[in-house]
Formats: sequence, C-alpha cells, structure tokens
Amino acid sequence: MSSNTIFDHIRIVLCQTSHPGNIGSAARAMKTMGLKHLYLVKPDIFPDAHATALATGAADLLESAIVTETLSEALTGCAFTIGLSARKRNLSHQLINAREAALEACKIATQQPVAFVFGTEMSGLSNAELDCCQLLAMIPANPEYTSLNLAAAVQVLCYELRMTILAGKLDAEERSELATNEAIEGFYTHLEETLLKIGYINPRAPKKLMERIRRIYARARLEKEEVNLLRGILTLSVNPKKHTKY
Amino acid sequence: MSSNTIFDHIRIVLCQTSHPGNIGSAARAMKTMGLKHLYLVKPDIFPDAHATALATGAADLLESAIVTETLSEALTGCAFTIGLSARKRNLSHQLINAREAALEACKIATQQPVAFVFGTEMSGLSNAELDCCQLLAMIPANPEYTSLNLAAAVQVLCYELRMTILAGKLDAEERSELATNEAIEGFYTHLEETLLKIGYINPRAPKKLMERIRRIYARARLEKEEVNLLRGILTLSVNPKKHTKY
Repeated sequence: MSSNTIFDHIRIVLCQTSHPGNIGSAARAMKTMGLKHLYLVKPDIFPDAHATALATGAADLLESAIVTETLSEALTGCAFTIGLSARKRNLSHQLINAREAALEACKIATQQPVAFVFGTEMSGLSNAELDCCQLLAMIPANPEYTSLNLAAAVQVLCYELRMTILAGKLDAEERSELATNEAIEGFYTHLEETLLKIGYINPRAPKKLMERIRRIYARARLEKEEVNLLRGILTLSVNPKKHTKY
Repeated sequence: MSSNTIFDHIRIVLCQTSHPGNIGSAARAMKTMGLKHLYLVKPDIFPDAHATALATGAADLLESAIVTETLSEALTGCAFTIGLSARKRNLSHQLINAREAALEACKIATQQPVAFVFGTEMSGLSNAELDCCQLLAMIPANPEYTSLNLAAAVQVLCYELRMTILAGKLDAEERSELATNEAIEGFYTHLEETLLKIGYINPRAPKKLMERIRRIYARARLEKEEVNLLRGILTLSVNPKKHTKY
C-alpha cells in the first residue's frame, strides 16, 4: 500500500459554497498538501474567474472538480464520511479533532475512498448534510473567535492529512470492507419504508426519528456484509417466510 | 505558568508583505488560534481597507499591530526567532518542521518572548532576514506544488502552536535565561568590529564571513550570561589587561 493510494482515496467536498474565491483558495490548499479530488455540491458560482485566480497553480484541480446536485452524489463510492464542524452540535454525532479525524480517515483510505465535507461559509453543514456523515471533526479554535475562513479550514485539515500520511504507520487494519455511501443510503430507505409499513413511524413526520436512527448506524460504521444482513431482516419483518413456525 | 502566558509570548512577524489582503487574512488566522501579537516589517500597503475586510472579526489585531522599519526592531525582547521557509536553504540553518518548531518555541515561550518570521509572498525570507533567525521551520508540502498562500502558512503554524499549547506538557525547562535579540545583535556588532580590528576579515567584504559566524551562534542559542562572557573575551582580545603574564 503506497501513500499515493491514500492521497488518491481522499475527497474534499464543499457544500453550497457562496464565494468562488474560497473554492479557488481551497483548491490551492489541497494541492499544496498533495490532495486532488475536489467535489462541489451546488456551488453558488462555478466555474468563475475569481476562483481560478485564487487557485493559482492549482487550477487543474478546479478543472477536474466534480460538481453535483446533492451531497449523496458526491459521496458515491465512499466508505467513510467525516463532516467538519466549527461547533458542538446537539445531536449525538461523535466529535473528534482534526488530527484524530485525519488518522481515522487515512486508515480507511488505505483501502477505500473517504470524504471530508465542509458546509457553507455562513452556517456550516445543514442537518441533512450531517445525516450523511459518520463522524464530526472540529479544528480546535479560540472559543472567543472560532471563525476560520473556509479555505483556511481546508488548509489545516489537508495539512493534518499530509502529516498523517507522511508519518506512515498506516498499514491496513485487518477488517472487512465497509459499506459504501449508496449501500448505506439504500439501507436507510429500506428501513424507513419498513418502519412506515409496520406503523412504527408517523408517515406525516418521519424525519426526526429517521435522523436519530441514522446517527446510531453512523456510529456503528456498517460493513458491506452487515448492510446485507440488516436488509435481510427488514425484508423478512414485513414478509415473513411462509414456513416459519413461530 | 498558564497557557495564556505562552499565547502572549508569541509574535507573528510578516516581512515586506505585498498584498494587504494577506495581512488581514493572517490576522484572522492568528486570532482563530488565540494569538494576538502581529508585527509588520515595512508592509507595502498598511493600513488598508482590504486588509480590514479580510480580517473580519480580527480587525483588533490589525489595530494593535506594530509596524517597524527593520526586522531587528520587530524582534526586540525576543529570546528565540524561527524563520518560515518553503524550501531548504543552502546555508547551515537547522531546518525542522512546523510541528517540531511549535514545540521548541512554546517551551521557550513559557518564560520569554519568541517570534515566527514570514518573508514576502514572492520570494520568502531574504538572507539578511534569515540571519536574524536561530532556526528555520518548514511546512511539509507537496514537492510538486509547495506554494502555500502566506495567510494559509500562518494558519497552519498558528494551528500547530495552539495544538501544542492545548496539549500542555510545557512545564518550564530547567535552563538559564536566553539572550534577547538585541543582546545577540550587540554581540555580533562587537564581534565584527573586533574581527576588523584584528584584521581577520576584509573590511571591503565583511558580509560573507559574518553570515557564517551568525549561523554558528544561531545554532548555539546563546544564554544571556554567555553573551556577556563572549563580549568579555572580545574586549580583552583587542585590549589585553596590562598585568597579563603571557
């Protein structure tokens, strides 16, 4: 496993960025640290001359950037997703610092793609975006002034990733393949349908309960086989095998 | 010793910055990490509305920034000075990474002021500026694209300083007081005069030799008492005590 594989397995995903200059500066920050894969979810303005100007020698990252309509699309194929947050959220996502997050991500990136997701400049990640993350990471900041610029936050995170990768000691752990983002999303859809069918959740307000359930499984970091197992249970729960005795 | 003391003992010195926007972004980067003392050596344009705009909530750091004509003035009272460099320089400064530099600096900052010095956006630190540093630090970057934006480099360094300070374990070492920058400069002046008097250096080209000598003492990290001792030797070397026997 070479360090190139790890660099190649890391995505930086910027959600609904308002200022194209920040996209350019983020691309430059990424490239200085050896990262390449930039995803832009519904950017306000892109492509843009100001973004290209601020990217300077990293304009190639803007050219190869992938623009998507939804965060879920940007996470296609990812086995692990970490959201960046400037503050403690009230829900039960696990919160770790950027250095710990870099280590977690790099271990998985020895084998499968991982993503770091950044929210808008003004308000960070929405709850719906958080629901796509398995873990939240924060950059420890001055409690009296936590306002890191978006590109500055990308710079610090990519720096920590580079430091982690260069330090080595990232031999692949003995573990099974993690489920991809789309497998997990397929499971959630299946689960929600099932819970509606069995009358466990209110069809007029399914959201709150599904959020709580998503956070439980986010912490569990489901493996590919485990998703299959859980979906098997769901299938049987509404359509039991005819020959069952109980 | 409180962590406030350490934060308060660290200066960020920007030399001859071309773009006022970078000064504003650097101030923001510093404040998010809890640092306050910004020194500007001969900035091209300052104060400036663009700098203030990019500083956002850190405009107070710009207001309290100290502008000087020379780097030496900006280092008044400092016991330890680290220059930031994007590349290996050919002279014999010790080169360490930003994480190691943060640890070195914070240990000294438990007791005495220290400074981190950043050069211009285009060419980094001049040789004359390097001569004022005891150590060089670099941010490990992609060898194919090392071009960190100035404010991004300040952000990464200040982040490492904050991580180091928050980690604690910075109890003051048992050591004597280091010489201040002006004490060291006084010694160099005294030494150069002495070497001229004794005919060791060429009065038409003293610079090269003095550079090499400065780097030796930079590595030595002279204590206050040691500077006095060395200056005593210099004084006697050109004006021996009358009653000397040898």
